[in-house]
Amino acid sequence: MRKQIFSLLVENTAGVTSHISGLFSRRGYNIDSFSSGVTADPRFTRITIVCTGDELVLEQIEKQLAKLEDVRDIKKLEHGSSVTRELILVKIRAKDTERQAVMNVAEIFHGKIVDVTHDSMVIELTGHQDKLDAFLDLLSGYEILELARTGLTGLTRGSADVTYLD
Amino acid sequence: MRKQIFSLLVENTAGVTSHISGLFSRRGYNIDSFSSGVTADPRFTRITIVCTGDELVLEQIEKQLAKLEDVRDIKKLEHGSSVTRELILVKIRAKDTERQAVMNVAEIFHGKIVDVTHDSMVIELTGHQDKLDAFLDLLSGYEILELARTGLTGLTRGSADVTYLD
Repeated sequence: MRKQIFSLLVENTAGVTSHISGLFSRRGYNIDSFSSGVTADPRFTRITIVCTGDELVLEQIEKQLAKLEDVRDIKKLEHGSSVTRELILVKIRAKDTERQAVMNVAEIFHGKIVDVTHDSMVIELTGHQDKLDAFLDLLSGYEILELARTGLTGLTRGSADVTYLD
Repeated sequence: MRKQIFSLLVENTAGVTSHISGLFSRRGYNIDSFSSGVTADPRFTRITIVCTGDELVLEQIEKQLAKLEDVRDIKKLEHGSSVTRELILVKIRAKDTERQAVMNVAEIFHGKIVDVTHDSMVIELTGHQDKLDAFLDLLSGYEILELARTGLTGLTRGSADVTYLD
């Protein structure tokens, strides 16, 4: 079993999110994370999907994705040759007396405090998944009230394999 | 027509992404952005959906979402009472001589240069959608080779309306 990150360029239609995610659910392939946003060309959306499976399953997923009419390009983002990032917002229960300690942890990870009340703080953090997990682990002494993750997104490095759609 | 941001807490099952997005596509509701990631409690996933519609359509969407068995909580994230963020990675064609100018724009927006080659740069930027749009607008003199957006995510401010699931 290993993790695979698929970066898809798809047509920006009402049904495309459903077509892509439906392919996974119909076949029982679990999606670890799913993020989508329109590209610089509003006709196309980039969808980044992280999933886990054995070689055979991952190969099947790629083949099935390639068959979908909406899908115009499929790339696998590999460690080293790509940049991947995720954004999280985490709301922590922290009283006035605990605030400084939480701020210190946030600072070490270059996180930003984006909301503070008398008993809570919201921290914004971006990075690789390893970094985000390490951050959440360091905060395990506090009560995490809410956590919002965007899911991973990414691009390959350099300009060699840019896909041009017409 | 106005924009609405729905923050859903859903059960973390293989089919949940497809159930949610299928509801939108079957009814022809367009999704502006879709992001999902597991919460601190691995049984649940938080899905943030941005969609545009008139009052009647947005009300219908909310009612339909509430009927789905996977959906455990629905919040509408409103300006002022919530924090919303998106992350983008943008790959720009920039020769050695143009690099400094691109770096200056990135610095003004507190963006990070995460990849550089002889003819391209990748910049990571997070913020509200307005900020990201202003940034992309400032870069319009350069060729955008690739753009990856996570889609919006967000949390309400403070600790008053945190949802506790058992």
